[in-house]
Amino acid sequence: MPKLSNKAAAMPASPIRKLVPFAEEAKRKGKKVYHLNIGQPDIETPKVVLDKMHNLDLKVVEYSHSAGFQSYREGLAAYYKGFGIDLNPSNEIMITTGGSEALIFAFQTCLDKGDELIIPEPFYANYNGFGVTANINVVPVTAKIEDGFALPPIADFEKLITPKTKGILICNPGNPTGYLYNEEELETLRDLVKKHDLFLFADEVYREFCYDGATHHSALNLKGIEENVILVDSVSKRYSMCGARVGALISKNAEFMAAALKFGQARLSPPTFGQIAGEAALDTPQSYFDSVIEEYVQRRDVLVDGLNKIEGVICPKPKGAFYAIAKLPIDDADKFCQWLLEDFEYNGETIMLAPATGFYATKGLGKQEVRLAYVLNQEALVKAVKCLEEALKVYPGKI
Amino acid sequence: MPKLSNKAAAMPASPIRKLVPFAEEAKRKGKKVYHLNIGQPDIETPKVVLDKMHNLDLKVVEYSHSAGFQSYREGLAAYYKGFGIDLNPSNEIMITTGGSEALIFAFQTCLDKGDELIIPEPFYANYNGFGVTANINVVPVTAKIEDGFALPPIADFEKLITPKTKGILICNPGNPTGYLYNEEELETLRDLVKKHDLFLFADEVYREFCYDGATHHSALNLKGIEENVILVDSVSKRYSMCGARVGALISKNAEFMAAALKFGQARLSPPTFGQIAGEAALDTPQSYFDSVIEEYVQRRDVLVDGLNKIEGVICPKPKGAFYAIAKLPIDDADKFCQWLLEDFEYNGETIMLAPATGFYATKGLGKQEVRLAYVLNQEALVKAVKCLEEALKVYPGKI
Repeated sequence: MPKLSNKAAAMPASPIRKLVPFAEEAKRKGKKVYHLNIGQPDIETPKVVLDKMHNLDLKVVEYSHSAGFQSYREGLAAYYKGFGIDLNPSNEIMITTGGSEALIFAFQTCLDKGDELIIPEPFYANYNGFGVTANINVVPVTAKIEDGFALPPIADFEKLITPKTKGILICNPGNPTGYLYNEEELETLRDLVKKHDLFLFADEVYREFCYDGATHHSALNLKGIEENVILVDSVSKRYSMCGARVGALISKNAEFMAAALKFGQARLSPPTFGQIAGEAALDTPQSYFDSVIEEYVQRRDVLVDGLNKIEGVICPKPKGAFYAIAKLPIDDADKFCQWLLEDFEYNGETIMLAPATGFYATKGLGKQEVRLAYVLNQEALVKAVKCLEEALKVYPGKI
Repeated sequence: MPKLSNKAAAMPASPIRKLVPFAEEAKRKGKKVYHLNIGQPDIETPKVVLDKMHNLDLKVVEYSHSAGFQSYREGLAAYYKGFGIDLNPSNEIMITTGGSEALIFAFQTCLDKGDELIIPEPFYANYNGFGVTANINVVPVTAKIEDGFALPPIADFEKLITPKTKGILICNPGNPTGYLYNEEELETLRDLVKKHDLFLFADEVYREFCYDGATHHSALNLKGIEENVILVDSVSKRYSMCGARVGALISKNAEFMAAALKFGQARLSPPTFGQIAGEAALDTPQSYFDSVIEEYVQRRDVLVDGLNKIEGVICPKPKGAFYAIAKLPIDDADKFCQWLLEDFEYNGETIMLAPATGFYATKGLGKQEVRLAYVLNQEALVKAVKCLEEALKVYPGKI
């Protein structure tokens, strides 16, 4: 049998999915498992989207333009205008197969083998996989739970910059931390990017999910680095339609957009059905977002307040997205999360969490931390918190 | 402005799309353009597919499993069983975002930077782009128009094999040649693959499009190289739903499938809507294919017989797919195809063809050849052939 590539060997297995067999086994044994481990929201997709699909007027499901339907790009330009961002739909917006493809295209277009990309950790674990795919080196800069996962000091970034450094990637609001960067943080990043002439990749797929009256500041609104900013977006969370696999790659940098389009042309086009859904979603009424945000705020409060009441648990209250990272009084998050599924139950129930180790690139970090996605209803979250509280009373590796 | 990657510079622009601005300009001037340049069929998507979409019963458009919906994989296993291929739907079939993603995953999983992949040329131009994306070296072995684009002699392959050679890629039936490999050709390939322990990547997306009673032989039916064969498939052409962006990566090699799934997990899942469409398409009645095949055979005959009647034109009659390559009495296919759009018209009409140079990796080959996709109705094809005949009478670069 021929040998597989070294790249395949280097490709990380999903840190979340490692636990899936244990969850399946737990369910087979009759345990109820509360899934706080993945960001698959239970929120319904807007009715305008499903109505559109029910009334599809197509005879042939054709390719679209490689950058996506022009009408959809025009609709997106209007959407961004609502955030003070002016974009030319013809050449500054490219529709992609989810935010995932946008990230891969961005990396391939800007970085070569061995080039370095600095990312504040803990970060979305699949950035590692996209880094391996593109043969680039991910360099973590650590954000601390004691600071609520605020942007690390710029001096920490400066220490990591080498001639190989091509860019910085931020996720705002962040998965897995829920942290929302304020204007000042973004301005310090802008100055750094400008000083070293780096790309600033901004993953803003959770833009709408900002709480407590906080405003989202887009990297595309930063003055003076218009050619450096590459925006990654997605309909997945915004409209609770993760399966549509529709995202966008956006930049005012014409050379970048032209080069990225060549990668887009090779794969022909983004999904036609998903684009139709995405375009329909632009008509989602504000009331949909209002009630979704209200629901998430309540869920966050139930979860985070509940967690902080448990002795030894620390969980900064996130201002965005629908994730939180909590520090637990445990020896090893990977062991603990597996133990929850294999060896623990409370009234026949248990919880599935994501060990935070998978979100850190620095070995050894996150061993006492877990990520929780508050994508369940409040009643389920109350029970999940209770489960965790009881689990911590009996976990053998408690410290 | 930061510098883009060398990879972006190496990424080829689509050879077909280079001419698009000229076609747009011709249309602006009022010319009717017959598009024989792309493989976007005008055939309607099966009714079962569109009916399914109209009756979607979904509340949340969720991610699927990273390898695709289990029910769809089971349906595909039944489909392949019809071709004498036994597959385990749980771990030998992975649904991908079109055949494009299947090819990229296959390359990433098997080949590292600098590894070599031998492909008979002329070949589907986007193989070049996927090669650049995966940082691998595409090595062409030339099939000749005089042999009707049959498999090049095995001695020609042997000459190209080096310690860096990891695999051979075939497209069967072929885009852009329409050539259908016979059993004997596939068996010589099998022996070669076995002798050198190579991967055999088989792109069989045109499987159903075999004419004149010819049978398609799948690489997965070859005995003794079960661990070497990687099959790439797609619903795009089979059900005329190119925009669904749903394909499959298939192998009996467990280690390969497990590694490829890690790339699949990083991008989360293939498109949900497209998968629903693909699963529904499995119920397409045989009568659909019968009438589609009949239509393509008639189109092929109209086109190819018409071309061969023009003085100086040679066009082998393809046994599969819906493309043909013709040799024309011209100096330079790129110039000729541009001239057709810019400077020629016959009764206010002209044709758009794909210069074959983009389908050869060897510089200088294909300069007198064009690819024609017979995806238009017969009346349009008759007029297109007439256009070409008249054009050759007046083209200044005729030789």
